[in-house]
Amino acid sequence: MFGFTYYTPTKVVFGRETEKEVGRLIREYGGSRVLVHYGGASALKSGLIDRVKQALDAEGLFHVELGGVVPNPHLGKVYEGIELAKENKIDILLAVGGGSVIDSSKAIAYALAEPEKDVWELFKKKRKAAGCFPVGSVLTISAAGSETSNSCVITNEKTGEKRSYNDNIARPRFAIMNPELTMTLPDYQTESGCTDIMMHTMERYFTQGGNMELTDEIAEGLLRTVMKYAEILHKDPKDYEARAEIMWAGSLAHNDLTGCGNDGGDFASHMLEHELGGMFDVTHGAGLAAVWPSWARYVYKDCMPRFVRFAEKVMGVANEGQGDDAIALEGIRRMEEFYHRIGMPVNMRELGINPTDDQIIAMADSAMDASGGKKGSAKVLHREDVINIYRMAL
Amino acid sequence: MFGFTYYTPTKVVFGRETEKEVGRLIREYGGSRVLVHYGGASALKSGLIDRVKQALDAEGLFHVELGGVVPNPHLGKVYEGIELAKENKIDILLAVGGGSVIDSSKAIAYALAEPEKDVWELFKKKRKAAGCFPVGSVLTISAAGSETSNSCVITNEKTGEKRSYNDNIARPRFAIMNPELTMTLPDYQTESGCTDIMMHTMERYFTQGGNMELTDEIAEGLLRTVMKYAEILHKDPKDYEARAEIMWAGSLAHNDLTGCGNDGGDFASHMLEHELGGMFDVTHGAGLAAVWPSWARYVYKDCMPRFVRFAEKVMGVANEGQGDDAIALEGIRRMEEFYHRIGMPVNMRELGINPTDDQIIAMADSAMDASGGKKGSAKVLHREDVINIYRMAL
Repeated sequence: MFGFTYYTPTKVVFGRETEKEVGRLIREYGGSRVLVHYGGASALKSGLIDRVKQALDAEGLFHVELGGVVPNPHLGKVYEGIELAKENKIDILLAVGGGSVIDSSKAIAYALAEPEKDVWELFKKKRKAAGCFPVGSVLTISAAGSETSNSCVITNEKTGEKRSYNDNIARPRFAIMNPELTMTLPDYQTESGCTDIMMHTMERYFTQGGNMELTDEIAEGLLRTVMKYAEILHKDPKDYEARAEIMWAGSLAHNDLTGCGNDGGDFASHMLEHELGGMFDVTHGAGLAAVWPSWARYVYKDCMPRFVRFAEKVMGVANEGQGDDAIALEGIRRMEEFYHRIGMPVNMRELGINPTDDQIIAMADSAMDASGGKKGSAKVLHREDVINIYRMAL
Repeated sequence: MFGFTYYTPTKVVFGRETEKEVGRLIREYGGSRVLVHYGGASALKSGLIDRVKQALDAEGLFHVELGGVVPNPHLGKVYEGIELAKENKIDILLAVGGGSVIDSSKAIAYALAEPEKDVWELFKKKRKAAGCFPVGSVLTISAAGSETSNSCVITNEKTGEKRSYNDNIARPRFAIMNPELTMTLPDYQTESGCTDIMMHTMERYFTQGGNMELTDEIAEGLLRTVMKYAEILHKDPKDYEARAEIMWAGSLAHNDLTGCGNDGGDFASHMLEHELGGMFDVTHGAGLAAVWPSWARYVYKDCMPRFVRFAEKVMGVANEGQGDDAIALEGIRRMEEFYHRIGMPVNMRELGINPTDDQIIAMADSAMDASGGKKGSAKVLHREDVINIYRMAL
């Protein structure tokens, strides 16, 4: 195994009605002037934004609000938030939403720490962040894990570039996680979230080295748990225990716990999906499901021991002497079956997009631009590999 | 399941030669005047203390040192450390050792934040801590989990009271975890540590309610991993991978990850052992092994579903229709077999102590005094129960 740094300072407050504690937590982390950031109309209609504002008022906290964050959050909204925050001397960001809202808040928080500089430079890897204002969240979607992770993904809606920037200084100070707040999500969003959660762990699982038994045990247990409760939620979206299992899994899947000791992980599936998200604005988790089986079949022979272990420990494939190749492929096939059972696509056609070959080449070029010319651990992918996988995934 | 707060802010820096980073980490957390706290001669003889001091010197940090912390760390040494720290205007504590040294540092850190008050009042539950100076560690024993936990256990050597105080404000800022530093431990210490690590998770596992599938999966995976590598280390104490698995398990077993969603856990075995430690100064992990089988047989009928699950998922007992009672008892029996395989005792005789009945009653009275008259979740224990279990464990 490799050495690692593990740093997850976010205070998680988990359970029913925990959003009532938001004012106290803002105070605990030294905030006094709050930008309440959120997405669409559902957070308003449900009354959540009002409840949050009441909790802030009860602590005598100044607050302004900015809604309208979209999935694959836009750089333009980040710039709007930066201006609003500066005008109002904001000292803490409160994201009420899922990964898109939290990431948009993180981007604003980076910008406020270096107000003279363009925050997009971080995502273009032109510089490193020197600071970040504090961020907290009231989570309403279990998926991205951004509520405890160091990652932030923003889409430049003018260029179509979807780019990430990861830095521990952006890890949120607190995360309020009430599973009840996720109960009204449409099933497609719930299951896309489950797919994203699993993929955050699978990206760390399919590697060439550095694996640690304890990390593997945690990863496999997490994947089994998410599969079990994703199916339950597909039938009963109001199941509190299932919502809670998925919500907590969403944080643990991406706070680095499931990658301790490894070589940094693969993350090629995320790279492949980011281009779909940038060009076609698909739902992130569904986009991952649409590319993963093709990625897996393209790379598995280069990472056979991991695919065999995955098939046996996660997908329940019995070793009856059929050989590694057959075991690995059966594991991939069962994952496709699982995706179908929860209403997820297994290719781009099922995802509802049909890129031309020119578009595939453009996506591959953009992916290589974002990744410095290569990506992956299970198998290191170059431009031709990326084109091949996109074509397989049509 | 129940709601929970999960807060593990400690920055873990894990891997070979990581002790070289200690100066940088002290600086990162704002320290400038360091009390280097350690235990016996081994840390000096191995050259570790010298290497740590060199790393502090390289950063230009002022430091003084205080050795001599013993297992079941003494309140007297804590008082000595407080005086030394005050004289030298210490602003950060660096524990170089295992749980005893870290706990002694935490107690000093509490005291420095409230210099007018007696720190023992915290352990006697007479008041809550209002603050705590920063603590970091270079870990040399995998066992207590104090490097990331909120707990602190001190023994008043004058009264024989071994008492704990838990508060999130004492969670260490950083933990340097180099598995190589544990390779020279005597086997008995290594295996006592493995037993302690497992017990931290088992205490959270045997409960009456609030169980979460994800938490159970993590707990069971952790227990299987520790059992596997404890046996490997019993044969080959220099196995780096095994040392690393155990070291990381030690932190995760007690940073609360394996208790998320539960009712707070049982912790009666720890209560039973604390009295043995206070009266007979036994090695903590070995003391736990000596009382656990008797505790388990005394309580399992009141917590049958958990004992059956434990037997099947952790101890590998196959359900062949033999009934819950037989499955649960077989799980306990296999744990005793495991303890014997790694050289641990399963009762007090094997631990090397033989308390009189008066001593048993004194321990039970002291345990009830420390616990407010009752303890446990799997089964709530009162004074008579504690006496019965001690007698069973002779």
